[in-house]
Order: sequence, then C-alpha cells, then structure tokens
Amino acid sequence: MHAYRANIVYTPTPDAFRYVELGYVVVNDEGRVVDVFEHLPAEYASVTVTDFGDKLLMPAFCDMHVHAPQYRNMGLAMDMELLPWLNTYTFPEEMKYKDEAYAKRLYTRFVHELWMQGTMRCAVFATVHLPATLLLADLFNDAGMGAYIGLGGMNRHSPQPLTNTTQQVVAGTIQLVEHCAAYSNHRVRPIVTPRFVPSCTPDMLQALGDLARDYQMPVQSHLSENMSEIAWVSKLEPETASYGDAYNKYGLFGQTPTLMAHCCYTEGKELQLMRNNRVFAVHCPTSNCNLASGMASVRTLLDNNVPVALGTDVSGGNHASILRVMQYALQVSKLQYTNSHGNLRFLSLSETFYLGTKAGGQFFGKVGSFEPGYEFDALVVDDHYLNFDNYSLPHRIERYIYLGDDRDIKFRFCSGQLINEPKQE
Amino acid sequence: MHAYRANIVYTPTPDAFRYVELGYVVVNDEGRVVDVFEHLPAEYASVTVTDFGDKLLMPAFCDMHVHAPQYRNMGLAMDMELLPWLNTYTFPEEMKYKDEAYAKRLYTRFVHELWMQGTMRCAVFATVHLPATLLLADLFNDAGMGAYIGLGGMNRHSPQPLTNTTQQVVAGTIQLVEHCAAYSNHRVRPIVTPRFVPSCTPDMLQALGDLARDYQMPVQSHLSENMSEIAWVSKLEPETASYGDAYNKYGLFGQTPTLMAHCCYTEGKELQLMRNNRVFAVHCPTSNCNLASGMASVRTLLDNNVPVALGTDVSGGNHASILRVMQYALQVSKLQYTNSHGNLRFLSLSETFYLGTKAGGQFFGKVGSFEPGYEFDALVVDDHYLNFDNYSLPHRIERYIYLGDDRDIKFRFCSGQLINEPKQE
Repeated sequence: MHAYRANIVYTPTPDAFRYVELGYVVVNDEGRVVDVFEHLPAEYASVTVTDFGDKLLMPAFCDMHVHAPQYRNMGLAMDMELLPWLNTYTFPEEMKYKDEAYAKRLYTRFVHELWMQGTMRCAVFATVHLPATLLLADLFNDAGMGAYIGLGGMNRHSPQPLTNTTQQVVAGTIQLVEHCAAYSNHRVRPIVTPRFVPSCTPDMLQALGDLARDYQMPVQSHLSENMSEIAWVSKLEPETASYGDAYNKYGLFGQTPTLMAHCCYTEGKELQLMRNNRVFAVHCPTSNCNLASGMASVRTLLDNNVPVALGTDVSGGNHASILRVMQYALQVSKLQYTNSHGNLRFLSLSETFYLGTKAGGQFFGKVGSFEPGYEFDALVVDDHYLNFDNYSLPHRIERYIYLGDDRDIKFRFCSGQLINEPKQE
Repeated sequence: MHAYRANIVYTPTPDAFRYVELGYVVVNDEGRVVDVFEHLPAEYASVTVTDFGDKLLMPAFCDMHVHAPQYRNMGLAMDMELLPWLNTYTFPEEMKYKDEAYAKRLYTRFVHELWMQGTMRCAVFATVHLPATLLLADLFNDAGMGAYIGLGGMNRHSPQPLTNTTQQVVAGTIQLVEHCAAYSNHRVRPIVTPRFVPSCTPDMLQALGDLARDYQMPVQSHLSENMSEIAWVSKLEPETASYGDAYNKYGLFGQTPTLMAHCCYTEGKELQLMRNNRVFAVHCPTSNCNLASGMASVRTLLDNNVPVALGTDVSGGNHASILRVMQYALQVSKLQYTNSHGNLRFLSLSETFYLGTKAGGQFFGKVGSFEPGYEFDALVVDDHYLNFDNYSLPHRIERYIYLGDDRDIKFRFCSGQLINEPKQE
C-alpha cells in the first residue's frame, strides 16, 4: 500500500473533472487505486506517503492509434493526401523494418518518445515484419508500459517488400500471442491488425477475423479516413453496405473489441453498425488536418453512442502528444460547431480529457481514471511556470492542456509502477 | 562587420526556401545583412566569425496580432464565441491594467514570453490605460525587441472602466508617439488602435483616422472575425458596403499601412478594398479555431493579392508561438482544400514560413529575410534531438516547424543585436 499526495485531477465521467486539492490517492500492492481522499483516513495512517507538493497528479494518456514504423517520418512529408502519401513516403519507410538493427534503433526511440509524452498505454501498428514486431513488444515490456502490438496484414495493392501472406500474418500473430504470454506482467498484448481493406484480400480478412475469434483477440484497423479511400473500398467490396460492413463481413468489426481509426465520414448504416457492435472510433484530428482528410464529428459519434478515444496517428499526425491531440479535438469540434451553425455542440474540456484518458483506457481494462479498482496509471506534472499568478486548480488543468508539454511531466506510473526513462540507445 | 556560420534557411519568396548548408551571413555594423555566402569571400577574411556549428539559423518570427493584457488568460476560457468571450473573460482582465503595478508584473512576463518564443517583432494591442501602455513600450525597448504598440480606443459597448474618450485616446496616442521618439533606437513605435468598430463611435473612428494621417502612423484593428460581430457592425454602420468599408470611411483602411486581424469572412467588396488599399490580413488560425470563429481562406486572400501575415492573437490564441501558428495555418488551409473539393490549394511549407517571417516583417521595413539590406533578425536553433538520423536540411526545417518549440532556440537577434533574456520579475 502506498499513498501519493498532490493536486488530483481526473474525469470519472465526461461531463466534469473531479478536482481534489492537495489530496491523496491510495494505491494497493497490486498497483490499483483504493480511493482518492481529501484527507488521509485514519486506517491508512501507517501507509508511506509520497508528497508531490503543489504538483498536478492526473491519469496518464492513452494513444489508441499510432504507427511505430513511421516514427522517423514524424513532422515530415505533409504535402499529399492519404493514398499518394502512403505510396510516396510511408511504405518506403516501413520497408526498412525488415532490417532488425534499424528496427531496434528506431523502435527504441519510438518507445522513448511515448514515455516522454506521458503515454503509458497505446495501440500500435508495427509492420509485416515479425522479428521487428517481437522486438517492439519487448521494448514496451522492458519499459513497463502498456501496449497492444499489431503485426500488419498486407497482401494486395502494396509494394511487394511490404507484403506478407495470409499464412504468414496468421502464424506470425500466433507467435506474437505466445511471445507476449511469456512476459511477467500482461501490459503488452497482441492485436489483430489488417492494415485496411485495400491492402488485404478477402481471404486474409477472413483468416484474421477467424484468428480474432479463436484467440479472443482485439482488432485494430482504419475506417473512412479519406474520400478517395472510401471510393476505392466500395469498388473493392461492392457487396457491402459500407466500408465498416466490409470489416464486419469478416468478423473484424466488434466481434471482439475493435478500434477503428479516423471515421471522418462515418454516417448512416456504418454509424449504426459501430454503435450496435460497440466498435471504438479513434479520433486523430491532427492527422486528419495534416493529410487533408477532413473532420470527424466526435459529437455525432458520441450522440450515437459510439465509443470514442484519441490517437496521435504518427506520422499522419505530426507529433506523439495526446495533450496536443486534445487541443485539436477541441478546436476541430469548434470548427464543426461553426460549420453546422451551432447544431453540433463543441466538446467540453472535461469530455476531451476523458477521451484521452478513461475512454481509451477502457480498452485495457480499468485504466485511465482514479476510481477504486483502477490501475494506477498516472502523471506527476510540474506546472509552476504556468501557475505564476495563483490560478485556481481548474484553471491550472486548463492551461496545462492548452500550454503544457512533455518537459512538465516529472514522474510517470503504469499500473502502480514508477516508469523510469527507457534507454535511448 | 560580423559573420555568423550555421545551416541557413530563409524565404526570399514564398515559393521556396533558400538553404545554405554551413554557410555564412555577413552582417554590417548597422545590423543589416550584407549577404549570405556558401563560403566566406576573401574580402571578409578578417571579419570575426561566430560559428554556431551544425545549428539552424533562420529569420526570427513576426507576430502581427497579439493582445498583451490578455496574457494571464492565455490557455484559458475557451468555451465561448467572440462576443460573450469578450464580455465574460477578456474585458474584466483588461480592466486590471489601470493598476500600474499589475501591468508591470504581467507585461514583464508577456515580453519575456515573446522573447522565449523567438518573436522579435510584433504588433500589440495594449488597453485604454496610458501609463500601462507607456510601460509596455519601455519593456520592449529595454529588451531590444521590435514592436508596434497600440493604446486602445473604446468609447461604446464596453464596460465603463474600459473606456476612454476620443480626446483621451488621441492625446494619449500623441504622448505615446513622443515617448517612443525618445528611444535611442526606433524598434518600438506607436500604432493607431481602434479596438473594433463596435467599440468606437464614428467620432472616435474619425479622430483616429485623422491622427493616423497627420502623424503618418500605421493602424491596426479587427475585421470580419465572427458572424455575430459582422451582423452587429452592419447594424451599427448601415451606410457602409462592408465591415472593412466602415474603417475605410474614417481613413483607417490602408490610408496608412494597416493590419486587420482575422478576415475569416472577407469576400466581395471587402476583399477588393483590401487589395486596392494594400491592407494586411493578419491570419490567426489558432484563435479562429478556439473561439469557433471559422476559417479564413489565406489562399483566397493571396490569390486576390491581399498581403497576409500571421498572428497568435493571445488570448483568443491559446499560445504565443508563431511556429505553432504556422502549423495551424497549414492545417486549416488543408481543411479548406478538402471543403472546397480541392479548389483552394493548400499552403506550402515555404509559403507558411514566409508568412510568419518576411510577410509580417515588411511592416517594419526590411525585416524577416536574410537578403542584402535586411535587418538581421535571427534565431539560432539547436535541433539535435530532432535530427537523430541524418535528416537533410529541408527535412530538418520541416521537422522544426512541426515539432520544435521555444527550448530549441539558443540565441535571438534583433536588428543585428544579440537579445538576451529579459528580466522576468
């Protein structure tokens, strides 16, 4: 048992922050929150207290869509839309991960970057290369951070060096399952990862759907990101009612817990199917701006009871910070409020913080909040340079969301464990 | 005479960067650029060279629209549109600047913030309070940074403590002229500053137009930011053809060099008038997102030969970084590209960098480039943590624009002078 003292901020529900000034989070020996207290109750009087003084203590971030092998391209190559961007910039970079030494060097930096940004849980696309993918899983495990790791499935409309066969992706994913099962904790886990409908034949999609069912593994992919992509999918899968229905047909759309990135143009039947199947929409507003994809309406998704989380989508996203994705989620929702003449209510600050913490955290179990029973994933933030004039605690968290960055994060915890800086080289 | 050696990057024209790897900028004793060289010519062999090694050397940033007395609210209070936001959050904060001690403490921090962000030139709104405004001018002058400083004009539709009379704003601005004339360099200058049409009676607007003409002073104000504001102006000035025409009627629209912030809805006659009168549109995309104002079309403005510069618009903008405004300018232009089905070509990286440096710099004379005769306003940037894998110089500048921040700026120059960190307290 251990107690942490600081200014505590979290979102049990989307509609409001809970603030506890100089309060206590008591964490049990399994790394789970016992409860949050304004004053430490007598029964915990003998518990060791770590006092973080006037700092902020908040849930760590969950990045629910990010491409590890695009890390070198982060902040680059933003002058094309999705499909030419993939062919010109992204696929050539991903091909390099056949080289394990390159993969080790770059993946080490990638894991360090997420650590730096306060992201303690993520859902990651790797490449089609199994050795590099196992290595990525090891790096997250060594760091103590939580991650779903996906070996990419790609067997059509992709450059040959970046393809695998149905048999390879299925066998590789099973190897990844076994590899992760050997870790002493279960923070790093496999996820079934067809890249997107255009890169996978029906045979591969069906095999991956069967695999997800047989191993009760979650699924991640891309959905309705860009108009040209959507038109292409409807040509490739003319029998389906929507892009989402193409995944659904093969058991890849909520049959097990499913993350679908983007959903910029999700509406009608696709929206219904997402709601009915409890498929997560992962909102990646930075990426959607950078690749001129458009604006997903988080309000429409939420109003239709589709679960929504946030993703940086590196390197479509130009940075790996969920804090900055929160800013963009707020701002894009305001542009949609204006475009809709006020019909689409813009996101509130607490809703947006919830999306980046508890909403994504659900995918890992009880993660992303400080309610009793939640794994203690937390950031200790020193905002003294922002708090130069006695701001209230609500104003401090607002300024941290709009102005803070990685240098403010002093300590990071995942599942109760202090996560030290991972080795960079 | 002095030479600086580094990786040099600047935009003589919007259409391309000029890159000189490990080149030299020679600066004369008046602080103006002699020229940029790949190798130091023999005639400058005796000149002292400061070698910045592998760092980047680029023009410093120009923030052409920013509200100094809103600094405490930066990163706060983003849940309302423009008009209620002014009344609820902004006006109450600006009232505090009647207190000179408060003004001194906060303005000191504001000037430090711009320094930190690499903004060596700016166009600033102060408040209606003359003593605080003179103090702000002194702080910029002491720092050695360039600024146009505006005493606000407000005599209607504003809370009483935040109003002045026509006579007061005219006399106060003349005092500011004399105050600035006494500075040993001329980097800090006065600018005529009617807040916006709704806050100024025709009498005040006319007097300020006359003042600008008589003293050949530039003008700054707000234009066509928000739909409700535009509707209000057309009620207040029913005789005018557009919001811009209301300024024009009083000699405040290009009769002397003029900055108009926002221009989200500028089209038709207003657009023509801006072009004909060479009125600058100051694009503030962060602010326009935060306050749900909408998206200004920089492409339309540029295609119509309206000069465009960038502004942070603190505290409608949630940060004081022109680097981040560049990111938003790129991203908002991509959303408009999508909305217009590709008709509005999105901004290129070099165009956007040009907007934040040379385009704004024009307002100060020859500023914002390293061409011969330009004042040497420069930033020395250490991007080694971004350049971990031998990126090309074009990729380094792209990653700096998308991923860099204030901590990377190692040295700042304004008009040839090294600008040290201003005192914070």
